Amino acid sequence: MTARGIETYFDIEPVEDAMLETPVPVVDLDVAERNIRRWQARCDQLGLANRPHVKTHKLTGLARFQMDVGARGICVQKLGEAEVMADAGISDILMTFNVVGAPKLKRLAALARRTSISLVADNAEVVAGIGAAGRSAGREIDILVECETGAGRNGVQSPLKARELALLIDRTEGARYSGLMTYPATGTRTAAAAILTEARDLIADAGLETHVVSTGGSPEMWSDEGLGVATEYRAGTYVYFDRSLIATGACTHSDCALMVRTTVVSVPTEDRAILDAGSKALTSDLIGLQDFGCVPDLEDARVYKLNEEHGYLDISGTDRKPKVGDVLDVLPNHACPVSNLFDRVALSQGGKLLGLTRVDARGLVW
Amino acid sequence: MTARGIETYFDIEPVEDAMLETPVPVVDLDVAERNIRRWQARCDQLGLANRPHVKTHKLTGLARFQMDVGARGICVQKLGEAEVMADAGISDILMTFNVVGAPKLKRLAALARRTSISLVADNAEVVAGIGAAGRSAGREIDILVECETGAGRNGVQSPLKARELALLIDRTEGARYSGLMTYPATGTRTAAAAILTEARDLIADAGLETHVVSTGGSPEMWSDEGLGVATEYRAGTYVYFDRSLIATGACTHSDCALMVRTTVVSVPTEDRAILDAGSKALTSDLIGLQDFGCVPDLEDARVYKLNEEHGYLDISGTDRKPKVGDVLDVLPNHACPVSNLFDRVALSQGGKLLGLTRVDARGLVW
Repeated sequence: MTARGIETYFDIEPVEDAMLETPVPVVDLDVAERNIRRWQARCDQLGLANRPHVKTHKLTGLARFQMDVGARGICVQKLGEAEVMADAGISDILMTFNVVGAPKLKRLAALARRTSISLVADNAEVVAGIGAAGRSAGREIDILVECETGAGRNGVQSPLKARELALLIDRTEGARYSGLMTYPATGTRTAAAAILTEARDLIADAGLETHVVSTGGSPEMWSDEGLGVATEYRAGTYVYFDRSLIATGACTHSDCALMVRTTVVSVPTEDRAILDAGSKALTSDLIGLQDFGCVPDLEDARVYKLNEEHGYLDISGTDRKPKVGDVLDVLPNHACPVSNLFDRVALSQGGKLLGLTRVDARGLVW
Repeated sequence: MTARGIETYFDIEPVEDAMLETPVPVVDLDVAERNIRRWQARCDQLGLANRPHVKTHKLTGLARFQMDVGARGICVQKLGEAEVMADAGISDILMTFNVVGAPKLKRLAALARRTSISLVADNAEVVAGIGAAGRSAGREIDILVECETGAGRNGVQSPLKARELALLIDRTEGARYSGLMTYPATGTRTAAAAILTEARDLIADAGLETHVVSTGGSPEMWSDEGLGVATEYRAGTYVYFDRSLIATGACTHSDCALMVRTTVVSVPTEDRAILDAGSKALTSDLIGLQDFGCVPDLEDARVYKLNEEHGYLDISGTDRKPKVGDVLDVLPNHACPVSNLFDRVALSQGGKLLGLTRVDARGLVW
């Protein structure tokens, strides 16, 4: 399907530029659209199914746009995100997080009745739960076996264990083995590919077909390394990019679509300005970086400290001293948890503020 | 006023224990009530007005309970919090953050028409804005001069500058000078008291009365140091306490009222369990600590890493290995930004889960 203008995917409450309150994330739809199309083109070229992770933006509008540009489906990290995305009409949803516990399995069964949801598992308890949910929904729920490939997070610990779990899934009524999934740590894609290939071949020898081999990650999205075995790619942050992805080389400043608009509320000394964005707007995520964000329009200034509502800007190194009332856009270290802090984000297009839209997949939903 | 039972201050949606989904903050109302009453008793004993900072809990129910137990008023950090608290019937509100910009000043004027809101300022632009809002509201808005006393954040930089700003406020129609405010850094209360005393005396010499000298901070709330000059105290985190305040000696584990309930979703190795609470539930706040929280029921385990939805638990040092499906309560490093992440928190009393209540002052409001 050819996507309509990206702005038509959102319910927008118009706001004049001068009346936009800070702190607030502002998403440049032109940049986001370029990022989405460029990544889709690369996936098409590689013959990889594109399954964007919507945890980054939590916006049904952007998810539907990603689908219309060519995504195979979406990836979510929790049931609440899946429910909201299903409500918005997205029918191919992979949840890359173990579902555990009676209340969540009940919700999973309800979701499975109305949409195509698939899941991951790395242990027998999760497989049993998903199977029960599938039986309750009257269908088989697809499960990818999550494999440890170097990140030291979830995942079965060897190709043999992957085969064992695939066979268990195959024996579990209400569940269907559909493939393998990993989130590779940076620099481990070749090693990950070897593990996934071995697991796939072992599972084939056992008589099961691996339809999907799902890998992901924005930091190394442009690298071809170890992609041979993969059938699909999950990237999330690429929609907005952020300061951490500039550091990994995945993008440049001009690719960053989400900035947190702030106001200078105090300039108590020549060396320091205080912004109205602290850890409740920018988060304390450092992910290996120095400082809690940067101000592209004030390159020599440093966001060196945050309190909950205060951002500390070191202006000792800049000649252009900000004044109280100045509006400064801060590029956050990590875009994903910023989206999670705000009930609404602002959208801009063609250099013009369109207004505010609701971050519809955040909040009440676990 | 004698407060009613604390649980009656909340709209509660009942939830059975087995149906409570994770991750979710659970507030022990017995512990919170004990913290609130103990701190009120100390303020009464010292003759200090108690002005709790509601940014910690963002719950109108707890704020109204704090008022009924004896608080003089409340403290907020942004207009949205003030608006919601005013809607809940709280009429004495101090906002300890510079108000800047036309949209916020318009909201301030509307608030000033219907409640007693006072503010802080550390610069002339903020005074001018508040004065204009006061004139628009047809009343004088009280302003405390924020003083730098060692924290290196906001504040006028000397007692002479405090006098200068107090006189400016006095000359500004729509504004009234009412006193001094500081947020002292840990270990600076004696130095802060000297600065505040000098400022107060200079301002008295200039013919203005300082009605309020407001200090605050939970880390040193039990210390008498430098309190002589203060007329009121702002503490926020003391309602819940947290891991960081155990580290400062302000509380013990048994004083901590907010825990994040999590579920073990994977035990991929003998050394590692994965919880369903990551930085989107616990925040990345370290505030000087090692690890991202602790599990009091599993003392030898360490929350050594977070991703957005994954919490990494090092279980190599414990003999009681958790299993998939186990529910573990995590004590967060910093309670305040955790409240800010959840639209609802669970309440318990007498060891029994009461249900969920809305965090009514978070979210849409800046």
